[in-house]
Amino acid sequence: MTKTNSGNFFEDFKLGQVIRHATPRTLTAGDAALYLALYGSRFAIPSSDEFARRLGYNRAPVDELLAFHVVFGKSVPDISLNAVANLGYANCQFLAPVQPRDTLTAVSEVIGLKENSDRKTGVVYVRTRGFNQTGAEVLSYVRWVMVRKAREDAPAPPPTVPELPAAVAGADLRLPDRLHFDGYDAGLAGSAHLWDDYAQGERIDHVDGMTVEESDHMLATRLFQNTAKVHFNQYTEGKGRFGRRLIYGGHVISLSRALSFNGLGNAALVLAINGGRHVNPLFAGSTVFAWSEILDRCDLPGRRDCGALRVRTVATKDLPCAAFPDKGADGKYPENVILDLDYWVAMPRR
Amino acid sequence: MTKTNSGNFFEDFKLGQVIRHATPRTLTAGDAALYLALYGSRFAIPSSDEFARRLGYNRAPVDELLAFHVVFGKSVPDISLNAVANLGYANCQFLAPVQPRDTLTAVSEVIGLKENSDRKTGVVYVRTRGFNQTGAEVLSYVRWVMVRKAREDAPAPPPTVPELPAAVAGADLRLPDRLHFDGYDAGLAGSAHLWDDYAQGERIDHVDGMTVEESDHMLATRLFQNTAKVHFNQYTEGKGRFGRRLIYGGHVISLSRALSFNGLGNAALVLAINGGRHVNPLFAGSTVFAWSEILDRCDLPGRRDCGALRVRTVATKDLPCAAFPDKGADGKYPENVILDLDYWVAMPRR
Amino acid sequence: MTKTNSGNFFEDFKLGQVIRHATPRTLTAGDAALYLALYGSRFAIPSSDEFARRLGYNRAPVDELLAFHVVFGKSVPDISLNAVANLGYANCQFLAPVQPRDTLTAVSEVIGLKENSDRKTGVVYVRTRGFNQTGAEVLSYVRWVMVRKAREDAPAPPPTVPELPAAVAGADLRLPDRLHFDGYDAGLAGSAHLWDDYAQGERIDHVDGMTVEESDHMLATRLFQNTAKVHFNQYTEGKGRFGRRLIYGGHVISLSRALSFNGLGNAALVLAINGGRHVNPLFAGSTVFAWSEILDRCDLPGRRDCGALRVRTVATKDLPCAAFPDKGADGKYPENVILDLDYWVAMPRR
Repeated sequence: MTKTNSGNFFEDFKLGQVIRHATPRTLTAGDAALYLALYGSRFAIPSSDEFARRLGYNRAPVDELLAFHVVFGKSVPDISLNAVANLGYANCQFLAPVQPRDTLTAVSEVIGLKENSDRKTGVVYVRTRGFNQTGAEVLSYVRWVMVRKAREDAPAPPPTVPELPAAVAGADLRLPDRLHFDGYDAGLAGSAHLWDDYAQGERIDHVDGMTVEESDHMLATRLFQNTAKVHFNQYTEGKGRFGRRLIYGGHVISLSRALSFNGLGNAALVLAINGGRHVNPLFAGSTVFAWSEILDRCDLPGRRDCGALRVRTVATKDLPCAAFPDKGADGKYPENVILDLDYWVAMPRR
Repeated sequence: MTKTNSGNFFEDFKLGQVIRHATPRTLTAGDAALYLALYGSRFAIPSSDEFARRLGYNRAPVDELLAFHVVFGKSVPDISLNAVANLGYANCQFLAPVQPRDTLTAVSEVIGLKENSDRKTGVVYVRTRGFNQTGAEVLSYVRWVMVRKAREDAPAPPPTVPELPAAVAGADLRLPDRLHFDGYDAGLAGSAHLWDDYAQGERIDHVDGMTVEESDHMLATRLFQNTAKVHFNQYTEGKGRFGRRLIYGGHVISLSRALSFNGLGNAALVLAINGGRHVNPLFAGSTVFAWSEILDRCDLPGRRDCGALRVRTVATKDLPCAAFPDKGADGKYPENVILDLDYWVAMPRR
Repeated sequence: MTKTNSGNFFEDFKLGQVIRHATPRTLTAGDAALYLALYGSRFAIPSSDEFARRLGYNRAPVDELLAFHVVFGKSVPDISLNAVANLGYANCQFLAPVQPRDTLTAVSEVIGLKENSDRKTGVVYVRTRGFNQTGAEVLSYVRWVMVRKAREDAPAPPPTVPELPAAVAGADLRLPDRLHFDGYDAGLAGSAHLWDDYAQGERIDHVDGMTVEESDHMLATRLFQNTAKVHFNQYTEGKGRFGRRLIYGGHVISLSRALSFNGLGNAALVLAINGGRHVNPLFAGSTVFAWSEILDRCDLPGRRDCGALRVRTVATKDLPCAAFPDKGADGKYPENVILDLDYWVAMPRR
């Protein structure tokens, strides 16, 4: 019997199955510095211990998306090693801040299974949860992937597709305990625009562009201990579908969030990801741009110091976003659009 | 009104104006490790807690130039987003060590304004100061940049050009409190040559060369949260003046300082930068070399354990420095010379 | 006299000579994060403080190979700056864990000298030891390099070749004090296969491949403060033997160890390196693969919770390892084989 991990195939998954993932991971100031160097993020809370402390943290937490990528990475060897496509994310909530020296582990539950009509593949839905060393849940999300079957004649379970909300309800958004925005210094954070200044339907071109190199995305994806082969192995990928290494979709999410600082500088933290799709692949050498639309605004339960904005950020490759490139009336995306991400951010109010 | 930062244009600056910059930044051991990986520096103080402690520090401070780049980066969105050229630095002093876990902020004052005769651009002089979380000033420097006007017919202020010293006076050089070189271990530091061994006029070819990749300079420049577009966006720069991303000048300064170890191994810390000019651009794929000239030697006030050397380091691209390539009699630089930097270092004496 | 280090030539070495190397180096969580980002290692002990604590550590140690590379890097300016070839390693033992905030120094002793018949070069054998700030020896190894003579007519010492064991004896393998595998969580570590499950002669294809970029190996090699010119200077190397920068051999060792996780996931730590040879050069753009053979299994003195496996890992470039590519009957290696490494790992047992 081989000792290498050949991953799970569609027929290996059972509804309700709970999978505890390897490798526990202590995040440190080293990871935070690398995250900053990889994406150039300027959001003030993960950038400054002092700024974070004034808002109630013990010290600067790591970027929410760094924690997300690390939890995601753990699930790869069990969930998506034999994935044909990463179809989407939904219902992601950030439940507790992750600080340097916290250790993350991850567990997934299979919440849906649906064989495709070609009987060669099926869609697997999992709810993945990340925990810190005290057992506290720090984040949770659903994703679904198309996974190959090992044997075409393997019997398929009855199709089960989980009901997923279009968005996390405003009332369910959770701010870190003790976080407050009293005395928030918007000037130091780098933007004069607060929650009150954003209107539903408003669109913002984030203007800046970031070119991605092979080293950048591979450093990031290894930092997340994500082992999906397509990101690392030019020998094999060079003979494959694209002839290139495919960049980890989460890399695009983090780049887009960092670019969105220019226009959303006080979007202090990401509270939830309602849904996300990587609608076209990204390869090294391309330049990523992004624009955002304010989908919704809502109060946060019991809070006068901040509110939530529901933001849709669209990222492109080699296409500046002054014209807000978007999907067509037919729902199809132009080939230069690579990401459509719908999420909630917390922003201080006046 | 757009919510993205379009930066300041020449006519937006007022003499005496004070600009507080975003984003506060806590430097950590993660930043120090990345700095080392990016430049390969071997100067002993920032490399070793033990070595630093024996000289009076609590622990290894971060490299002075890392602190410089971080402070510089903060000033970019306010000062040089619309810069046509970064013309020079002067009168930079390192006033207090920066340790891991220190949080830096930056403030600039406009100290000079001079419209160019074409009325399309003007030169802005700023004094930028970096502070730590206790409010102590850690470094201070002047730089001047050529900035575009938004409207050619905008009225210009009366020209004011600050008087800048050719060099920081030896008597003004400041060593970190408690730093002493008693029991300095030159063998462990990696060089047998102390202050007494260097003569005014002496020239040193640093021999080694370092090739720069796109990933390297972008990682560095993002780490410094420097947002100047020319360093990151190949889509736009590919259509621009050079057809290439321009490497952040500070990257060349740090590479040159790291290369200078081979010949100046006991130049334990940089005390001041008298002046610096990026005389030609650097692009990825080129190899950086450097040579230095000892411009001056001076005692440090009240010290017998160390002295200061005024060093001029010249960096080149794709040109080894055995022949000490330099500007010509006409003051013009050959195209392979990229940096002319004049600075003071502290070095232990016999 | 030049102040730059021109390195030692063959005739500069004396049998029994002890060389204390520069630059002391404090390893931190920043180095550990970078190591992870560079190699994507998933071995659980250096990845998680919690996992490490349950096995008796105070916190996660840094990867043994990170400590090895840092100690090796220190020896380069004194031992191998004028090396023509790095011929091999032997008898390497990891003697104490290295934790973040430990400071490493290195000392080498010349234990063998043998001039080559061409009288232009000679082989230098050194025993290099790394120490932490308490003076404890953390690792020790022998390497031998072919070094140029400065003057062909320089007299050579009588030839002395040290006797080196083919392998570290099982009885000499040393586990970190307090390390135990009681309650070891193999599921969390990521592999179901324990010491008892591996058989002598068993071969494992590690399947995965990792493409190396110029930025990757230069970041790594600078992090290790390794100054060997061939890794960094495309200007010079472009005119040299290969026309390319040569990748530091240690980079291949770390990549191979990281790849070996897939099949040897519970090979919790490297105890010793019996021998290693870089049998062909690696250049950027190639994809590294690896396979391993179990050479031997042995008990560890006084331990029932774990045993040692002697592993031979062979790495290739641009050649998947399903067919276990190996040296031929004539002892010669195919050009795609780049590393042949023989080492001991500790693995928990049932």
